[in-house]
Amino acid sequence: MRDEATKAVTTIGLALQEQINHGLLVAASKLPAERKLSELFGTTRITVREALLQLEAQGQIYREERRGWFVSPPPRLAYNLMQRSHFHAMVSAQGRVPSTEVISARLQPASAAVCAWLQLPALSSVIQICRSRRIDGRLVLYVEHYLNPQYFPGILGCDLSQSMTELYARKYDLHYGRVRFEIVPTSLQVEAAAALKVSVGSPGLRIARVNYDQHERLIDCDLEFWRHDAIHVGVDVL
Amino acid sequence: MRDEATKAVTTIGLALQEQINHGLLVAASKLPAERKLSELFGTTRITVREALLQLEAQGQIYREERRGWFVSPPPRLAYNLMQRSHFHAMVSAQGRVPSTEVISARLQPASAAVCAWLQLPALSSVIQICRSRRIDGRLVLYVEHYLNPQYFPGILGCDLSQSMTELYARKYDLHYGRVRFEIVPTSLQVEAAAALKVSVGSPGLRIARVNYDQHERLIDCDLEFWRHDAIHVGVDVL
Repeated sequence: MRDEATKAVTTIGLALQEQINHGLLVAASKLPAERKLSELFGTTRITVREALLQLEAQGQIYREERRGWFVSPPPRLAYNLMQRSHFHAMVSAQGRVPSTEVISARLQPASAAVCAWLQLPALSSVIQICRSRRIDGRLVLYVEHYLNPQYFPGILGCDLSQSMTELYARKYDLHYGRVRFEIVPTSLQVEAAAALKVSVGSPGLRIARVNYDQHERLIDCDLEFWRHDAIHVGVDVL
Repeated sequence: MRDEATKAVTTIGLALQEQINHGLLVAASKLPAERKLSELFGTTRITVREALLQLEAQGQIYREERRGWFVSPPPRLAYNLMQRSHFHAMVSAQGRVPSTEVISARLQPASAAVCAWLQLPALSSVIQICRSRRIDGRLVLYVEHYLNPQYFPGILGCDLSQSMTELYARKYDLHYGRVRFEIVPTSLQVEAAAALKVSVGSPGLRIARVNYDQHERLIDCDLEFWRHDAIHVGVDVL
């Protein structure tokens, strides 16, 4: 009997957790009343309450006096520009779970803006790789990578859901050297909004990275579009 | 006669420029039709057109096919975190005009957050200086400075509309050493929104600076609240 109650608590906890992870229950949204939850899960209010208290202890939800239970905003990822890290390593190091999906990858004519970022002549081709990235299942980042094709023969045949940093090192012996970051508050336009499943015009943070290799060659640039509430950026200047 | 027309062109240009600088004509807003402007200024459409073309050449306004004239968004300030500069120097170096107003300055009990920023013990006092800053007359930045009082005796008696960096150097022989920046997209809350004359909840960028002096002592921190469209932040990582 006691075992069964413990099992029910775990089941409810995991169910709510899963809905939060998949964004069905979003940050700051109110959970149904405990009575409703006990109906939904076919269990007692005491069991529901215990599951809620466990989620509270994990920081997943919080209570407001007389108002009920709410979904906690997930903590912002600490993005330290001075540490040479990449998305997967950075997210994992903070005890969270990264994942990446490739949206598209192709060789295409470079726009004027991309020519300027990569210092390419007019009418150049460029490899564009678009990816979306999640932390603990939540979509937080849409990235457009632009690669100078001369340094990356055959890359479109590779698994592009892995870390580009690691792929560059393993397949091309290219390592990032100098990096220039440019950070601009922005509103998310069509592609980024669709990839992040938010409304067009939602606030976001654009971080452009222009990357040089160990030989001081400008090899690629990334345009990162972050949910505005997903990161804080740290920079230590000595 | 020619002189008079030239003078009229200059008058109209300055009048429109002044309205833009004071935010009466805001970015992306449409100017009245040329006919209306010629009535308003009591001059010919040719003179109005010439004044508009001059403002266009200066990048103050732009034309859209068949839609008319619009106020250009002012260029974002390039804020390079790696360059040791302060607001007045940075803005001036980009050919623009900085100004600063002091909103308040006082010794007060430090909040828990400020204690954490400045690594002060509980129930400490802190000097809080709130200022608003303009570029070319436009409100772009609201700053709360928090100073550890032990390093700044008598500072509340000084002219606080000047550069703090210069005041620290001249009066206290304190120079900034290491700086830690933390950049977070935010929505502007009551004080910042009031100082910047925008609605509460408007998007903004918060840049927290934690400053050490030449002896590695944590001397102050600044919480900067920027209009989201006023800057882009640059960081070069070697």
